[in-house]
Amino acid sequence: MKNENARIELITVGHELLTGSTVNTNASWIGRNIARLGLILNRVSVVDDSSEEICSSLKESLSRNSSLIIFVGGLGPTHDDITLESISKCIGRKLVLNREAMEMVREYYRSKGLKVRMTAERIKMAMLPEGSVPLRNNKGTAPGVKLELEGCIILCLPGVPREMKSIFRESVKGEIVKMAGRVQRVRRLITISGIFESTLAPFLKELQKSYPNAYIKSHPKGFEEGVSKLVLELDIRALNRSSLRNILEEIEGKVVSYVKLKGGKAEVLKQ
Amino acid sequence: MKNENARIELITVGHELLTGSTVNTNASWIGRNIARLGLILNRVSVVDDSSEEICSSLKESLSRNSSLIIFVGGLGPTHDDITLESISKCIGRKLVLNREAMEMVREYYRSKGLKVRMTAERIKMAMLPEGSVPLRNNKGTAPGVKLELEGCIILCLPGVPREMKSIFRESVKGEIVKMAGRVQRVRRLITISGIFESTLAPFLKELQKSYPNAYIKSHPKGFEEGVSKLVLELDIRALNRSSLRNILEEIEGKVVSYVKLKGGKAEVLKQ
Repeated sequence: MKNENARIELITVGHELLTGSTVNTNASWIGRNIARLGLILNRVSVVDDSSEEICSSLKESLSRNSSLIIFVGGLGPTHDDITLESISKCIGRKLVLNREAMEMVREYYRSKGLKVRMTAERIKMAMLPEGSVPLRNNKGTAPGVKLELEGCIILCLPGVPREMKSIFRESVKGEIVKMAGRVQRVRRLITISGIFESTLAPFLKELQKSYPNAYIKSHPKGFEEGVSKLVLELDIRALNRSSLRNILEEIEGKVVSYVKLKGGKAEVLKQ
Repeated sequence: MKNENARIELITVGHELLTGSTVNTNASWIGRNIARLGLILNRVSVVDDSSEEICSSLKESLSRNSSLIIFVGGLGPTHDDITLESISKCIGRKLVLNREAMEMVREYYRSKGLKVRMTAERIKMAMLPEGSVPLRNNKGTAPGVKLELEGCIILCLPGVPREMKSIFRESVKGEIVKMAGRVQRVRRLITISGIFESTLAPFLKELQKSYPNAYIKSHPKGFEEGVSKLVLELDIRALNRSSLRNILEEIEGKVVSYVKLKGGKAEVLKQ
């Protein structure tokens, strides 16, 4: 599976991801949701809460001709939330108070029935790189941010999962749908037992050659009661539903026959 | 927390990580284990099973002056396991049959009581970049690989978690211990309820200034029954145990007093 004329990268910012105290489920959630829309996330980078790291990851991603860069993390009120400040400095744009973002921050506290002072830390969440558009956050205080740079769209989302997901659904999905066009896609898993991955490998190599647009991948699952177990993953895209169904049936048929021939068992899991 | 004179990067290879069908728990496990040894993983990159992506990620990591680069994934027998082949091509070294690695592959099958033919797919797992040292894999077929390039150590591990962990413990840990020296480290979590993260922020900013070598980070956990919840993470390093204990007690004391002053509750979780 490859994107045509579109490169999408994700940069997740946070010390807790590098020390492993948080598992990067934001990255897998975003990858899965981009795949559902028919495209693939081309790269994920995980960087520290550091201006230098944020800037170098952004510049490297731009140099790889990304069409869309999604930053996640570092938009909150605390001293180590420096994503927007770092991007501003990196691309040479001023960090300015965005009136619309300020109103979103105020609105969040109002919606909780709270009267709070607009302290420096709260105002900080409305300080965006010049030329940005704030993206409404229905689940938390800090708005997301959209900006364009050299033909590349940069979206910044908070790292708190429920806030990230809410802004993704409301404001990011649309950008990806525009890129994806009308590609149809299906995914299947086949469980295989009783043959080694290395026995399957030459067959899969040929199968991949016959179907270059399909993604075909075996995952070894070790041994159960002395019997080798595998899961074969198929991920198929086509321009319409009927050719998608045909390709899928052909590949499934070939896999099942080959495994049987080698004395193993295969079962297609319907999803 | 920052490494002195050592930069460690992780490059995880696998389409399944980009489509989110697999969560990158290898990355968090490795990050956690490096942190336990007193260092920090400086960057994680997730790339596709693609020669171009593997090569660009390696070159970029070298250009960031990494001292240690750990690759995970793509060492197996199948057509899309191309990490070693891609690294070889990228750094201009031949891919050659390594006798010691070949013996390790044979030994694995023997240990399972199996007589198998050494097919091209099985031999492939012993084809390493010239000048490499194979690393014993007690949990699977494909050996890990160690090579040195321009003063940087490159380690390649399989993506199957139990195999990765086994080789990490046996062959990677030692490299990191050498880098880490004798730094002492402790981590604490403090749960805080009843005050906003933005209320805590100016206090944390000052606290961070007073303890520049401590890592201090608040994680908002939303509302429970209308009460704001946070977790404060402390990660502290020092050159001996007694100064580590002193710093920890000072910081905990200051946090608890401040939260109380603002009408909230704080509880230190002993680990």
